[in-house]
Amino acid sequence: MSFTVLAHEGAARRGSLALAHGVVETPAFMPVGTAATVKALTPEDLRSIDARIILANTYHLWLRPGRETIAELGGLHAFMGWDRNVLTDSGGFQVFSLETRRVLSDDGVRFRSHLDGSEHEFTPENVVAFQEALGVDVAMALDVCVKLPAAQGEIDESVRLTTAWAKRCAAARSRERTQLFGIVQGGLDERSRERSAAELVALDLPGYAIGGLSVGESRDDLYRMTRFTAELLPEGKPRYLMGVGTVRDLIAGIDCGVDLFDCVYPTRCGRNGRALTRSGDLNIRAAAFARDGRPIDATCGCTVCATFSRAYISHLFRANEMLGPRLLSLHNLAVLAQLMAEARKAIYAGTWGELRDEALLAATGSASSS
Amino acid sequence: MSFTVLAHEGAARRGSLALAHGVVETPAFMPVGTAATVKALTPEDLRSIDARIILANTYHLWLRPGRETIAELGGLHAFMGWDRNVLTDSGGFQVFSLETRRVLSDDGVRFRSHLDGSEHEFTPENVVAFQEALGVDVAMALDVCVKLPAAQGEIDESVRLTTAWAKRCAAARSRERTQLFGIVQGGLDERSRERSAAELVALDLPGYAIGGLSVGESRDDLYRMTRFTAELLPEGKPRYLMGVGTVRDLIAGIDCGVDLFDCVYPTRCGRNGRALTRSGDLNIRAAAFARDGRPIDATCGCTVCATFSRAYISHLFRANEMLGPRLLSLHNLAVLAQLMAEARKAIYAGTWGELRDEALLAATGSASSS
Repeated sequence: MSFTVLAHEGAARRGSLALAHGVVETPAFMPVGTAATVKALTPEDLRSIDARIILANTYHLWLRPGRETIAELGGLHAFMGWDRNVLTDSGGFQVFSLETRRVLSDDGVRFRSHLDGSEHEFTPENVVAFQEALGVDVAMALDVCVKLPAAQGEIDESVRLTTAWAKRCAAARSRERTQLFGIVQGGLDERSRERSAAELVALDLPGYAIGGLSVGESRDDLYRMTRFTAELLPEGKPRYLMGVGTVRDLIAGIDCGVDLFDCVYPTRCGRNGRALTRSGDLNIRAAAFARDGRPIDATCGCTVCATFSRAYISHLFRANEMLGPRLLSLHNLAVLAQLMAEARKAIYAGTWGELRDEALLAATGSASSS
Repeated sequence: MSFTVLAHEGAARRGSLALAHGVVETPAFMPVGTAATVKALTPEDLRSIDARIILANTYHLWLRPGRETIAELGGLHAFMGWDRNVLTDSGGFQVFSLETRRVLSDDGVRFRSHLDGSEHEFTPENVVAFQEALGVDVAMALDVCVKLPAAQGEIDESVRLTTAWAKRCAAARSRERTQLFGIVQGGLDERSRERSAAELVALDLPGYAIGGLSVGESRDDLYRMTRFTAELLPEGKPRYLMGVGTVRDLIAGIDCGVDLFDCVYPTRCGRNGRALTRSGDLNIRAAAFARDGRPIDATCGCTVCATFSRAYISHLFRANEMLGPRLLSLHNLAVLAQLMAEARKAIYAGTWGELRDEALLAATGSASSS
């Protein structure tokens, strides 16, 4: 792996991340393929919007179809027919969302499957082994994510375990082609973020994520903590803000110096009839669109906008037709992909400030990022 | 429109049907796009399997989104982004499936919407006007389809009304580019089929369908009545067997001299996890496929079989992922498209008899068509 920062404008940066399955130009948004499929879309669709890396979920794949099946079929890339990069999360976030069903110890976390109630355990070691067995390009260290607001004692404990587990993850590595990223925790407390970042940076991992945000806190808190944490991370390593995927949050994240993002937002919206545009989201089922012959977004360069009208997609959702979620999922991901491509170009050209202000104005009606 | 029979082998024929949106090489299977969408698939997907004509349902489009919306958006082709041919059924079949909710008279048929209970009426005239307003390439005449087994009186009445309505449909035509096909009824009674065919052939319509079959009768009855009816139809006009779409039934239909087919079977199966192959259908959810790295059908030339394993598609269905129905729908249509392409080639080459026997043996374990 190599990561090169090619240009800066303020904290925003344009980079190039070379992974085992090709180069990811950053800033980049990673579509989420929870169960080894970006819902409703094929690898070919993802290539059509020039996605270079997608995310899949350790928790879901662990339970179904399981490590043996995927390994036997040649790893996650072969299994899902995707020859570009894959990052898997560590499963920690999912387990900690299932609050009542997990038992945390220094060793790891025991939990019950949401599918059949069976008992499982994630440890730093088995989570790394799982991700390596899948053959992913980037593996995330097992972390402890606290629910906000959190008491200081809880935050301290999450930072302590996250560091201890990251060390054990690092020690458990055995596969050159899988890069291990650490995850900075610390809630909304700056001293805890500093401590978490310092302890993880000391491990000299190939990349760092900002975790524990985008979990319900205010936009002000999200942006403040993202900026604060990004500044604590090494200049020469990729920074990944987990769970962020709206137009305005991506702009803010880029402006804080973040390189990678992921979120289910664009595909979940796509399944629910919510169309992303640079000037706000549309509820495509709304009566106003039933006879609207225009594309979802006339400024969008995606194949959906080139081919289908709002009226047609609105009809598909009213008629409960699968093609509706499919088309909107692709369009929504295309909107974010185009935003990222423009950001990359602007940071090179020194026009990021303008793009940022214009895009925020279009998205929110205000040129301030919060 | 022009229809040319290019070659014969026995009753089987290889033809070329020139319609307003391009040439359809026959025999051809028409994918069903009930609500102006072949479920889960894009026009691009349909082009990838070289579909030249698809079917849409008057009944469904009448109720939603309705004639005005489609006309305002430039007609059905523009509405759904499909630039090849479209055939619409007349709505008769759907209305007669909703048995308890319709009132039949000489004038037409009154029925209630399955969506909101609102009352509507189909007449020969308004059904032609509707299909012409949609700008379709082939419109079907309004017919009366009886449920089998049927009393002779019921069959007589259905033939009488079907003829009377076909005359009124023919008189109501106003659009050169929309071809009106008549539908032969007559249940399983040969004399009634003769009468229906003779009365419709006298109207000199551009094409004829064999209706009232594939509604639950035995395979013997289906094949016997198809062969009997096909022989009653003019040699120089296209023959369309409605509602047929399994591998063995298509082979039998081609062997009877049928040129066009449609059925929801391949796409419905695709949504339900049933994969069509030339050697029988597979339930892709079966445990046996969970780690099966082979494609659905190694002899299939479709993109799904080139890219994905049985294990992956099995996983998609277990995980309730939309991509599963999408991939299997495309594969299933591809299987039928490839069968039709091979049949066309074989009839030219004089090897249809061999292909038929081999394909039937593979599909059924027996080389007889029933």
